[in-house]
Amino acid sequence: MHNHDHTIHKHCHHTVWDNSLEPIKSVKPGESVHFEVHDASGGQLSEKSTSSDVPNLDFSKVNPVTGPVYVEGAEPGDTLEVEIEHFGTMSWGWTAIIPGFGLLNEQFPDPHLKIWDLNNQNVAQFADGIEIPTKPFPGTIGVALPEAGEHSVVPPRQNGGNMDIRHLTKGTRLFLPVWVAGALFSVGDTHAAQGDGEVCGTAIEAPMEIQLKFKLHKGKSIQEPRFITPGPLTTGLDEKGYYVTTGHSDDLMTASKKAVEYMIEHLGETYGLSDQDAYALSSVAVDLKISEIVDVPNYLVSAYLPQKIFK
Amino acid sequence: MHNHDHTIHKHCHHTVWDNSLEPIKSVKPGESVHFEVHDASGGQLSEKSTSSDVPNLDFSKVNPVTGPVYVEGAEPGDTLEVEIEHFGTMSWGWTAIIPGFGLLNEQFPDPHLKIWDLNNQNVAQFADGIEIPTKPFPGTIGVALPEAGEHSVVPPRQNGGNMDIRHLTKGTRLFLPVWVAGALFSVGDTHAAQGDGEVCGTAIEAPMEIQLKFKLHKGKSIQEPRFITPGPLTTGLDEKGYYVTTGHSDDLMTASKKAVEYMIEHLGETYGLSDQDAYALSSVAVDLKISEIVDVPNYLVSAYLPQKIFK
Repeated sequence: MHNHDHTIHKHCHHTVWDNSLEPIKSVKPGESVHFEVHDASGGQLSEKSTSSDVPNLDFSKVNPVTGPVYVEGAEPGDTLEVEIEHFGTMSWGWTAIIPGFGLLNEQFPDPHLKIWDLNNQNVAQFADGIEIPTKPFPGTIGVALPEAGEHSVVPPRQNGGNMDIRHLTKGTRLFLPVWVAGALFSVGDTHAAQGDGEVCGTAIEAPMEIQLKFKLHKGKSIQEPRFITPGPLTTGLDEKGYYVTTGHSDDLMTASKKAVEYMIEHLGETYGLSDQDAYALSSVAVDLKISEIVDVPNYLVSAYLPQKIFK
Repeated sequence: MHNHDHTIHKHCHHTVWDNSLEPIKSVKPGESVHFEVHDASGGQLSEKSTSSDVPNLDFSKVNPVTGPVYVEGAEPGDTLEVEIEHFGTMSWGWTAIIPGFGLLNEQFPDPHLKIWDLNNQNVAQFADGIEIPTKPFPGTIGVALPEAGEHSVVPPRQNGGNMDIRHLTKGTRLFLPVWVAGALFSVGDTHAAQGDGEVCGTAIEAPMEIQLKFKLHKGKSIQEPRFITPGPLTTGLDEKGYYVTTGHSDDLMTASKKAVEYMIEHLGETYGLSDQDAYALSSVAVDLKISEIVDVPNYLVSAYLPQKIFK
């Protein structure tokens, strides 16, 4: 890790947002903080795990976030800026189809697990001739909620949280609204790669370290998180263009499901992938865009597959 | 225009999909066809139009498509490939907020019109210091529907149509399912630029010519349109990164509306734009991505503003 002022160890984690949690450490704006982060299974899966381990996951332990950190001077109504400075090395990761979870959970009732070797750091092999460029980001990053009590870490909310925004990569500056004194910041659920949408419900889930720097914007209020990326979003992934499926519907969710179903069909026909492999590959590499959201009564969602991943 | 085998003049247009329409011309697979295309107002707006002309638009005349063209040999169950070969020059365009239309039509009841000078061909000035790189594409491109009768050209359907997919740019190959003999292909609604989503309901609407080449995939059936892009999607637009707002909700439509509302707020605060200008600028330059569609019960939509447009 680069120079930093504090280290937050991964045993200091929580699996619900709760604004009564005791902060692990107090940090000053301008300081860099080094976080160790568990994978999203909270250590329940390992490099040796198989599909048969997926149904045994204890959901009360999933998606742990490291923290919370008290940011000195942060008060409700401020905005906390978090600069994503650096990621540590990766060694392995996993992508699962979890029964009952994911965009197409009705069509995919069976568990499935793919274990990835990430030692290369820059690219992860999915199968012979299919390689995913990696670009790590935290799936879950946020602050305590204004509401008291325990709140599941699974859905994102006005505190950020499990936003799964794949473009929160190195150099990005994230702006989070502050809801409680000290903000009570936590981060977890690091991903090595993901498509916009994370359609099967998991990305390349990988434990890693992450270094963040805080800055405080006093009296600047925002309602939900925002961020600024330092440059292009898909460098290294877009040179060969995209194969794109589209789905239209009077409902964006239905349109999205159709576009992904057609993508799975394409991946099966063209590359011989099983439906489960195609679904998992879509989750880590395919981007969902809203092409149009105005041509009533039908909206159109497109699923973009980067051709670069095929050798 | 480049070498082509046929020209379809813009007076040969229709404003409903109707599979009983007489084809204008019969073309062979492999031939290049040059289409003249009206702007989406069908000539009702001009470079001299103002906001006060917007409420007078006759909707029975909007979004005319040039055609239909009969593609020899095309039968139901085939796929028609349309290669987007070339666009003609542009001279002017318009972007309107039309009462009752658009993602935020409840917040924007008043008509608004921006006229663009497109003579530069590569960039269009929105205001002092704000310039939109242009990359033309057809907003509406499709074939006749299997169902008899007249069908509004506004919503996209399984025939393609008004898909408003901004990445159908030069070099892209579009695949359309064929529903009737000859496919009965038409194209219109050319846009000089647009963001994914087309949030205010209009893009930079600009009359222009477009050259397309047809190819037939006999016996290859698809349910909805697909396409292949030849390369990166946002070259010339993404070098300076993006300012991004996010919206979460248990409904993708609501999440999208929130993300766009926050973007309008940002454009007003940062660049002094009026709400109407910010909404129109979002429509031509901001991309809506589905960041995650699985973290029940909340989904997250992000609105990406390219920083490159600000000088």
